[in-house]
Amino acid sequence: MMKEGIKIATIGGGSSYTPELVEGFINRYEELPVRELWLVDIEAGKEKLEIVGNLAKRMIEKAGLPIEVHLTLDRKEALKDADFVTTQFRVGLLEARAKDEQIPLEHGVLGQETNGPGGLFKGLRTIPVILDICRDMEELCPDAWLINFTNPAGMVTEAVLRYSNIDKVVGLCNVPIGMEMGVAQLLGVDHSRIRIDFAGLNHMVYGLDVFVDGVSRKEEVIELISNPENSSFVKNIEGLGWEPEFVRSLNVLTCPYHMYYYKKKDMLEKTQKEAAAEGTRAEVVQKLETELFELYKDETLEQKPPQLEERGGAYYSDAAVRLITSIYTDKRDIQPVNTKNNGAIASIPNDSAVEISSVITKDGPKPIAIGDLPVAVRGLVQEIKSFERLSAEAAVTGDYEKAVLALTINPLTPSDNVAKAIIDDMMEAHKEHLPQFFPKVLS
Amino acid sequence: MMKEGIKIATIGGGSSYTPELVEGFINRYEELPVRELWLVDIEAGKEKLEIVGNLAKRMIEKAGLPIEVHLTLDRKEALKDADFVTTQFRVGLLEARAKDEQIPLEHGVLGQETNGPGGLFKGLRTIPVILDICRDMEELCPDAWLINFTNPAGMVTEAVLRYSNIDKVVGLCNVPIGMEMGVAQLLGVDHSRIRIDFAGLNHMVYGLDVFVDGVSRKEEVIELISNPENSSFVKNIEGLGWEPEFVRSLNVLTCPYHMYYYKKKDMLEKTQKEAAAEGTRAEVVQKLETELFELYKDETLEQKPPQLEERGGAYYSDAAVRLITSIYTDKRDIQPVNTKNNGAIASIPNDSAVEISSVITKDGPKPIAIGDLPVAVRGLVQEIKSFERLSAEAAVTGDYEKAVLALTINPLTPSDNVAKAIIDDMMEAHKEHLPQFFPKVLS
Amino acid sequence: MMKEGIKIATIGGGSSYTPELVEGFINRYEELPVRELWLVDIEAGKEKLEIVGNLAKRMIEKAGLPIEVHLTLDRKEALKDADFVTTQFRVGLLEARAKDEQIPLEHGVLGQETNGPGGLFKGLRTIPVILDICRDMEELCPDAWLINFTNPAGMVTEAVLRYSNIDKVVGLCNVPIGMEMGVAQLLGVDHSRIRIDFAGLNHMVYGLDVFVDGVSRKEEVIELISNPENSSFVKNIEGLGWEPEFVRSLNVLTCPYHMYYYKKKDMLEKTQKEAAAEGTRAEVVQKLETELFELYKDETLEQKPPQLEERGGAYYSDAAVRLITSIYTDKRDIQPVNTKNNGAIASIPNDSAVEISSVITKDGPKPIAIGDLPVAVRGLVQEIKSFERLSAEAAVTGDYEKAVLALTINPLTPSDNVAKAIIDDMMEAHKEHLPQFFPKVLS
Amino acid sequence: MMKEGIKIATIGGGSSYTPELVEGFINRYEELPVRELWLVDIEAGKEKLEIVGNLAKRMIEKAGLPIEVHLTLDRKEALKDADFVTTQFRVGLLEARAKDEQIPLEHGVLGQETNGPGGLFKGLRTIPVILDICRDMEELCPDAWLINFTNPAGMVTEAVLRYSNIDKVVGLCNVPIGMEMGVAQLLGVDHSRIRIDFAGLNHMVYGLDVFVDGVSRKEEVIELISNPENSSFVKNIEGLGWEPEFVRSLNVLTCPYHMYYYKKKDMLEKTQKEAAAEGTRAEVVQKLETELFELYKDETLEQKPPQLEERGGAYYSDAAVRLITSIYTDKRDIQPVNTKNNGAIASIPNDSAVEISSVITKDGPKPIAIGDLPVAVRGLVQEIKSFERLSAEAAVTGDYEKAVLALTINPLTPSDNVAKAIIDDMMEAHKEHLPQFFPKVLS
Repeated sequence: MMKEGIKIATIGGGSSYTPELVEGFINRYEELPVRELWLVDIEAGKEKLEIVGNLAKRMIEKAGLPIEVHLTLDRKEALKDADFVTTQFRVGLLEARAKDEQIPLEHGVLGQETNGPGGLFKGLRTIPVILDICRDMEELCPDAWLINFTNPAGMVTEAVLRYSNIDKVVGLCNVPIGMEMGVAQLLGVDHSRIRIDFAGLNHMVYGLDVFVDGVSRKEEVIELISNPENSSFVKNIEGLGWEPEFVRSLNVLTCPYHMYYYKKKDMLEKTQKEAAAEGTRAEVVQKLETELFELYKDETLEQKPPQLEERGGAYYSDAAVRLITSIYTDKRDIQPVNTKNNGAIASIPNDSAVEISSVITKDGPKPIAIGDLPVAVRGLVQEIKSFERLSAEAAVTGDYEKAVLALTINPLTPSDNVAKAIIDDMMEAHKEHLPQFFPKVLS
Repeated sequence: MMKEGIKIATIGGGSSYTPELVEGFINRYEELPVRELWLVDIEAGKEKLEIVGNLAKRMIEKAGLPIEVHLTLDRKEALKDADFVTTQFRVGLLEARAKDEQIPLEHGVLGQETNGPGGLFKGLRTIPVILDICRDMEELCPDAWLINFTNPAGMVTEAVLRYSNIDKVVGLCNVPIGMEMGVAQLLGVDHSRIRIDFAGLNHMVYGLDVFVDGVSRKEEVIELISNPENSSFVKNIEGLGWEPEFVRSLNVLTCPYHMYYYKKKDMLEKTQKEAAAEGTRAEVVQKLETELFELYKDETLEQKPPQLEERGGAYYSDAAVRLITSIYTDKRDIQPVNTKNNGAIASIPNDSAVEISSVITKDGPKPIAIGDLPVAVRGLVQEIKSFERLSAEAAVTGDYEKAVLALTINPLTPSDNVAKAIIDDMMEAHKEHLPQFFPKVLS
Repeated sequence: MMKEGIKIATIGGGSSYTPELVEGFINRYEELPVRELWLVDIEAGKEKLEIVGNLAKRMIEKAGLPIEVHLTLDRKEALKDADFVTTQFRVGLLEARAKDEQIPLEHGVLGQETNGPGGLFKGLRTIPVILDICRDMEELCPDAWLINFTNPAGMVTEAVLRYSNIDKVVGLCNVPIGMEMGVAQLLGVDHSRIRIDFAGLNHMVYGLDVFVDGVSRKEEVIELISNPENSSFVKNIEGLGWEPEFVRSLNVLTCPYHMYYYKKKDMLEKTQKEAAAEGTRAEVVQKLETELFELYKDETLEQKPPQLEERGGAYYSDAAVRLITSIYTDKRDIQPVNTKNNGAIASIPNDSAVEISSVITKDGPKPIAIGDLPVAVRGLVQEIKSFERLSAEAAVTGDYEKAVLALTINPLTPSDNVAKAIIDDMMEAHKEHLPQFFPKVLS
Repeated sequence: MMKEGIKIATIGGGSSYTPELVEGFINRYEELPVRELWLVDIEAGKEKLEIVGNLAKRMIEKAGLPIEVHLTLDRKEALKDADFVTTQFRVGLLEARAKDEQIPLEHGVLGQETNGPGGLFKGLRTIPVILDICRDMEELCPDAWLINFTNPAGMVTEAVLRYSNIDKVVGLCNVPIGMEMGVAQLLGVDHSRIRIDFAGLNHMVYGLDVFVDGVSRKEEVIELISNPENSSFVKNIEGLGWEPEFVRSLNVLTCPYHMYYYKKKDMLEKTQKEAAAEGTRAEVVQKLETELFELYKDETLEQKPPQLEERGGAYYSDAAVRLITSIYTDKRDIQPVNTKNNGAIASIPNDSAVEISSVITKDGPKPIAIGDLPVAVRGLVQEIKSFERLSAEAAVTGDYEKAVLALTINPLTPSDNVAKAIIDDMMEAHKEHLPQFFPKVLS
């Protein structure tokens, strides 16, 4: 059983998102009495860890709370007896993301950092590290919950479920909350009154129904969204509108990432144009990050600076701390998370990860059964699930052909030869972070 | 959308249980502001309706609440614009139940008023009436929720789901709450700290896991129950203990009614002995009821008398009003109810009724996916589900052969010829309440 | 029960394929004693019907068989008491197919006459006619088998299963036989020694295993196919080779039509180039047809001319007559057909049409259970199945928005707006054959 | 690939059934050119092995066929390079079966040597031996097919599928053939014209439809069977008739063993009466066996004596050799066998054994998908499947509590305490053959 006073270990603690998380812990301290927050990072991230760690300390001091912040490069020390492990690291940093986006574009393909070629390579780099963390957890904190924010969150959760002995794992994403916020705004009601029945996969999640105070208002919302001006109701993909006929006949809510699939052509053109004008999204974010860290350095800063919201991770902290709080307090509220399907969605295997509205208990998320997804969306969801499974398998085995297969079946990929060409270029570019594909010869 | 001030229509309002229900509405008035409570009964129940109705009025007056109590024999008037319809009627009264129990015993078979021959005939009498109520509801209160307490609750819910146009239906039973209470007592903790993951069918429900404050203590509970002294931890089936090896290897919690199946022989002997000594359970209850109504008549009585608890329906009121409140307030708490499976239990059809832990929203119960039932219990659950489906079909069609089939496949039945003999005797005995099998010849 | 002497009704009897069919009946006459062959066509096809009908008569006369050939424009007369109804008509003739191929190309999308936009519109034109034939069959030959060759065969079979009362329906395609022929050639063995375990959908079928004399030689075949020179082993899609890594990791046999999906980009370029050089496939076929009918007119011609094979329908006759023979004689051999899934492929609904190796009995095809499709192909198959279902629904209801949805989720479609644009152009172009979308105003 | 000239290894070769098998090999020699037949037995069966082995030799000599018969006590020598391994041994001989039947009867329970307490203990004795044979096969003849006749055939096949590395296994039973013979007789047509669509489990199999020359005549057969005089249409369970209403509403064919479940009471009384009069079935069979072996000793006997048919194993040889022949020749005919479900029956797990009409290929049986079993029979089939799985698990692990659980959930068992009492008595009685439950202490 959990002891009073919680220990949190945050892998990738030097991330620019950390102040969000710290703010979350401060705001919910009464329900969630964190005693120790361990921010871990690797040698290369030491400077950032210190900057952001010191900001965290100042924030907590200002709040007057007895939370100890520890900064360390020693992961094992941080994991020892932790109650919750959160992960928000990025293997290869934003430089790697830039390649994930740039290289596919050169082949006329969207990089898409979760369910596209970018996501495949992010997975290939990340999954071995996550599985390594899982092995440490088995030894050092076997009762802890792994709360994974690291993208591609669906693929990573799938990999942990299939290839580790850790089953206390939840994958988390801010997209569903963002959709709720968007709907709240559309309807002009407070976010707290909105509930969406979510089902699907990470970055491929649908809102099957929308409730305000428990009463369905889906029809009205669908009608509003079928107005192209409203259709993209979350911040980071703007300017494109759905065909009203498509929205109405689909008759469920899409998430912003669906634009990559149902508007492949437009999104590709938009991304190419933006890349030409201002660089890839990674490059834009890189600039933002540099600015953020400049702000964080300011020793008078004692709270999360408003500029952080532009970074794209809005609500992440809220989502994460809300989830941890509900587990810790056995709150049994409904939250959309990535968890084991367990039959909740009929056409997805029981042992695969899905993103779905679940009741959050101290024993973890319990997915709410939905029967099956609407006919119109089953195929795309299956395709991405298969992509995730094959990618995870390639990440674990280092099987090059499996990686080619994963990318060929991805809906963003136009041809098997393009898949292979992208993979060859990206393997080369990410070489140093893909030891499973490039085993070092012993000298 | 629901208006302020709720209208409840209670079919079978003259039941001795009504004071429980009224007490529930009084206790939760703040959350659930009932404005009108309509107690409906049939001509034959008029006297009881008045007795219990007047007690209800006195109780409410004493509580000082603005709830109007209406007594009526006109069902349509009661249903008009109702928000919730609760059913607690008994076609043929306790006399019919006595036959349900007595006749099978004469053939050496347990009557079992839900999942045995007694339940079959209770279903054959009840289902046509329930479907008639559903047709009225379609017309008079299409947005109302039907909260069914009438046994056999699983079979009745199945029939409503399959053969009516009402899909806002929930079947309710006090067995799961009783199990939680029993476990709370065994562990010496307050009931509010217990959560059991329920799955199965009505009176055939299992506790897959047991949590105290969100932490599983199943192992400990299984060990406690494997002690025969503790094994029957709910009031109305006492004196028999499970074999410890069975309890431990089954490794999920049984409900008291499981004794009828896993201890057929002992239960039969016990029931025969009791019937010889004190009459059937129906006769015992009849005596209790007569005494209760004597008490109810006392015009100085202004609250539920303690003797009501012995009647066996403990927690029913709590269960019912708790459910109605959670629907009304969109509370999203977890309650075990009979609802459409929707994939929550893999081996039961999606469109069948199951009894399962569900999140209660204003949009109704949302079952929590469990994957599948343990291997050891799947067969029995399937058998009862098939029994329920065939019984419901026989009730709707008046197909005599289907009734024989339903009873022959019931696990309590020793042979097809015994099934037929019981059915023939019971058809004759219940003739007047089975118009679908005995159509009146027009003169 | 079937009487001696079989009556066949062939809807679209004026097709250039008819001599294939007639040859088939002649070759199998001993097993399948056809007594009457009714070739039906519409007024517009009268001339062709006469040309091809007279050739049929000459072929039969030469064979010395007592088969009566009837030519008629009266469908009801042909259907009356038929034992088998075969359909090979083309609503709107090759002119319509030309539009199916041309219009999408103008939007940069492959027309694809079965599982692409071309297939959608072919379905929208064809399904109402097929359902009309089904209604006639119910009345005139309720025990007959409907053997459907009309493309899109999967979508049409799905529509008959869902929207008619005829359940004796089989959809037939020559692709699986072609794959067997190709494999036989690759391995240098006679076709009769090859068996492929087929599963999937029409024009989206996979070979899960390959046997020679009952012994699996899949590994060897996969290796051979991974050689790009061999990869396209059926006649009508040539010149493109698979990436070897893709073939090996997919590890099941693809069908030629898979090139449209796994090599979208290359196929589009190839098709555009060919369309520019020699016109669309429809135009090429049109030329071939004209030549064929010139040949057919020759009153000395008494057999199928060899030029017919170039038309692309090789083995169709063999497939069709083989199927009819196996049904008629209760042969119980294994054939790949489009039939009701019935659980054979786990991720496809039980009541949907699949293309699968089945045992052919007098009671129809019995699909062989395969468990589930390989992970890598489930998504694409689901997507096409959803496309088929939504298209069939649109064809029946005349729901424009449903048609937009069907095309938007099709994997060949790059964006919702492109889907809508194609649909608008094609609706206009095919107006006269889409009465469900353009109801005539009564004057 | 298989070589010309087949080697058969028959474990339990000294069985009185062996002449049946030999007759089968002789009759089908042309299709199935057996070169070596190895009859293996254990030391205790040496005498019988010699008697029956010599009869086999005489039979083959008379037939003038070049089949070598080898008699051996060395299992490994027999298995070396075998093409087919058949098993027909009986751990503990008929003495053990007598206990399997006698002990439960003393507790008022049917022994039932497959799906009752007798079957449980037969499984506990047999499964470890079968798994040992599987381990030998892996080493000595990894490509051989294991054709298992040893009862309980369903439980044994389940155990091999779950707990060995051999997946080329088929379980075989003569019940389905017997049903076909019975139906043929009822309808007065030759057996070869009958096909029944079988689905279910071993000794719990149903005939879903019945065809004569491919045309369904189920309705007529159901009507005939509903006549109690016809209802028990297979030899070894006679004298009891079904209730006509039950037969008609069940609307599928039952197998004779269903009498143990749907007529528990009558079968118990009948068995008790017979046991009192003539001893248990085991004792009757024992007498028959003694007589048979006396006949076999006669050196002038050169063929299967007609008395063997009374032994109860009629058609076994036909079933077995027919199956082996179809595998060897890749015949692709339909036979009912015990094989991996693979989705053919929806409510049974894909990886469990079912008894189902399958197409027999050189690659083994391919089950024909049936969708799901009728509602009325799903429960009983699930219950027996769960019984088989738990029994197999107990057999492998030696877990006493699991054995108690298996028997408690068996539909023949009246109570958990009766289950435990039977198990305790039988464990004691069979001690020497249950080493997994009574590990020898090393001295």
